[in-house]
Amino acid sequence: MIAFLTDFGLQDDFVGTCHGVIAGIAPEAKVVDITHGIAPQAVLQGALVLRRSLPFMPAGIRLAVVDPGVGSERRAVALRTADGTHFVGPDNGLLALAADELGIEVAHELTSERHRLPSVSRTFHARDVFAPAAAHLANGVELPELGPAIDPAGLVRVTVPEPDLGASQVAATVLSVDRFGNVALNLDRVHLAALGLEPGTRAEVRLPYERYYALVVGTFADAAQGELILYEDAYGLVTLAITGGDAFRLTGVGPGDEVRLVRS
Amino acid sequence: MIAFLTDFGLQDDFVGTCHGVIAGIAPEAKVVDITHGIAPQAVLQGALVLRRSLPFMPAGIRLAVVDPGVGSERRAVALRTADGTHFVGPDNGLLALAADELGIEVAHELTSERHRLPSVSRTFHARDVFAPAAAHLANGVELPELGPAIDPAGLVRVTVPEPDLGASQVAATVLSVDRFGNVALNLDRVHLAALGLEPGTRAEVRLPYERYYALVVGTFADAAQGELILYEDAYGLVTLAITGGDAFRLTGVGPGDEVRLVRS
Amino acid sequence: MIAFLTDFGLQDDFVGTCHGVIAGIAPEAKVVDITHGIAPQAVLQGALVLRRSLPFMPAGIRLAVVDPGVGSERRAVALRTADGTHFVGPDNGLLALAADELGIEVAHELTSERHRLPSVSRTFHARDVFAPAAAHLANGVELPELGPAIDPAGLVRVTVPEPDLGASQVAATVLSVDRFGNVALNLDRVHLAALGLEPGTRAEVRLPYERYYALVVGTFADAAQGELILYEDAYGLVTLAITGGDAFRLTGVGPGDEVRLVRS
Repeated sequence: MIAFLTDFGLQDDFVGTCHGVIAGIAPEAKVVDITHGIAPQAVLQGALVLRRSLPFMPAGIRLAVVDPGVGSERRAVALRTADGTHFVGPDNGLLALAADELGIEVAHELTSERHRLPSVSRTFHARDVFAPAAAHLANGVELPELGPAIDPAGLVRVTVPEPDLGASQVAATVLSVDRFGNVALNLDRVHLAALGLEPGTRAEVRLPYERYYALVVGTFADAAQGELILYEDAYGLVTLAITGGDAFRLTGVGPGDEVRLVRS
Repeated sequence: MIAFLTDFGLQDDFVGTCHGVIAGIAPEAKVVDITHGIAPQAVLQGALVLRRSLPFMPAGIRLAVVDPGVGSERRAVALRTADGTHFVGPDNGLLALAADELGIEVAHELTSERHRLPSVSRTFHARDVFAPAAAHLANGVELPELGPAIDPAGLVRVTVPEPDLGASQVAATVLSVDRFGNVALNLDRVHLAALGLEPGTRAEVRLPYERYYALVVGTFADAAQGELILYEDAYGLVTLAITGGDAFRLTGVGPGDEVRLVRS
Repeated sequence: MIAFLTDFGLQDDFVGTCHGVIAGIAPEAKVVDITHGIAPQAVLQGALVLRRSLPFMPAGIRLAVVDPGVGSERRAVALRTADGTHFVGPDNGLLALAADELGIEVAHELTSERHRLPSVSRTFHARDVFAPAAAHLANGVELPELGPAIDPAGLVRVTVPEPDLGASQVAATVLSVDRFGNVALNLDRVHLAALGLEPGTRAEVRLPYERYYALVVGTFADAAQGELILYEDAYGLVTLAITGGDAFRLTGVGPGDEVRLVRS
């Protein structure tokens, strides 16, 4: 099983071409598309989505490509974690956030010419390097055949923004906005509890130029239609939403923006 | 075979995560994505698309999730129809429109903890409840194992808008707009015939603030490029379109809007 | 293996329905979606993408549908090329551009009623004619069973725009714009070399109402963030891009537009 994540979108043939390359090398491999909707070149977002999808994917290979540095000196790598999961992709932090959670046992640089396409372009390594490597792993090829071992400690890591928790407020960062306009913050319910924001209470939501009041709830149905809410989403993140509505359209905040929550 | 329909879109990892959950429980199951492009929380639209896709999907399981009431008291259900097809999803009308056409034999509420993920969130039952149930059915689990039988007559039903047919005009409702901008109405060719709108005649198309004239045709190629037409679409619905163009961009009408057709 | 390309998008159930039809007829067939993001009715774009994806797809069947003439007199066809690849789709140039590269050995018109759905609509031949034909081919049905042989020389061909190369400039045409905003031209590196535009030099990029300067590079990483570049993309086309940015947003040019490159 190969679980596949990119920022390629589905409008072009990039994803389909990678599927074709995999099917050519490993016809028996089953590919599950985690998503290809990561914002273009958003390595942190890709790393977060790869990490959160981990527990729901069956054992096997993770192929992830968000690769603004393609063609540069950044390394192409494959990792194996303690549970036997393999990760394949660029060494830019995309893989390590998820892999560190499982514990990286070994890391190899992808240098073997026999395990790439015959001609490697300078801008589409997903097709020419990463998809072939993942397919060969699916066929039972061992990591050392793909290239030399490298030190896992030397892999590039991304920094996930940390919230700044005060006595009566917390400065949070937006991690993602989903298709329903739900705005996930880098907070969990412990942060809310520390501010006394229990279900049924209201938080002041301070944005750079606006402020709103949101009801803390367990789920959408605990608030009236159209009400701004804060709830713990299905991945454990405190999330700003509107029951039957779209909190992104109201607030306009996106990944990286600051949102301050104040007990009101 | 599991045919899968949601309003999740493909930008996020929601659909991919459900695929992962299914692959983990039922590795041999083949999943066909009907679509994940249902407008957010548009239960009626989802129900209509699920129904119209029925004859083209092979026998098996239908997994459908458009679920604005997730986390509320709405029930999670699985149905079996007379032909052996299974339907899995929320009890909000999404499934019953299609299932009623085949005849619902039995309905069960999804309460079995053994057939859910170990931890069930309050906002993502597709991942935690519905995908696991569909995967277990694909593995041969029987409906009674998933939870107690409930009365099919008590399932929630959606109401499909009915046209209002007069002597010289009909008041129709837009059911859907596709990617080509074709606007499907809740009419079939019998309604057109009742108004004397045979192929080759012209209908006046009355919108709230505008009116157009459309040529009644059998297919796009029966009209000149750029001409507004009315034709019976591939699912039997009278549809407003423009040959080589986009009727939605011209008219701006969307699902739920009224369109009046008058013999001109 | 069936590789599948359309202009249907994924918002509607068109693609899913075709998958369902194929799974019903040929349950063992593996379908790879090349893309369904071809612009609506853009036959030339579809033909170009089908051609460029060819070397990366495993042997088998290519099912391609961009079909503005559906329901007209345009023929439905299946082709076999010298390497044993089959192509199925409308006879409007979509297939022939790719198939000619491999050498078309035989062409057949799809007329057999036994190899279509029982009822054929006038507007959705992908579902009713093409997907069934591809699925039957996957099952081992031979081309002559699908309909009478026709002369490959009589197939419709598209015309790919040719650049106009002068002594100090070239008038090129935009072939495509991808999700990253990279603008591919109908030029290869030979055209650049003929103008003396070697890596490290700068080209003047003349658009109808604007002009820019672009650095000729090997890959994105050879230029600073935000710099306009010209590079040879992974399919060999000279492409206008911005390192870490979006050249389409800057320039606004799309398929069919003229771009003049001048040695500066």
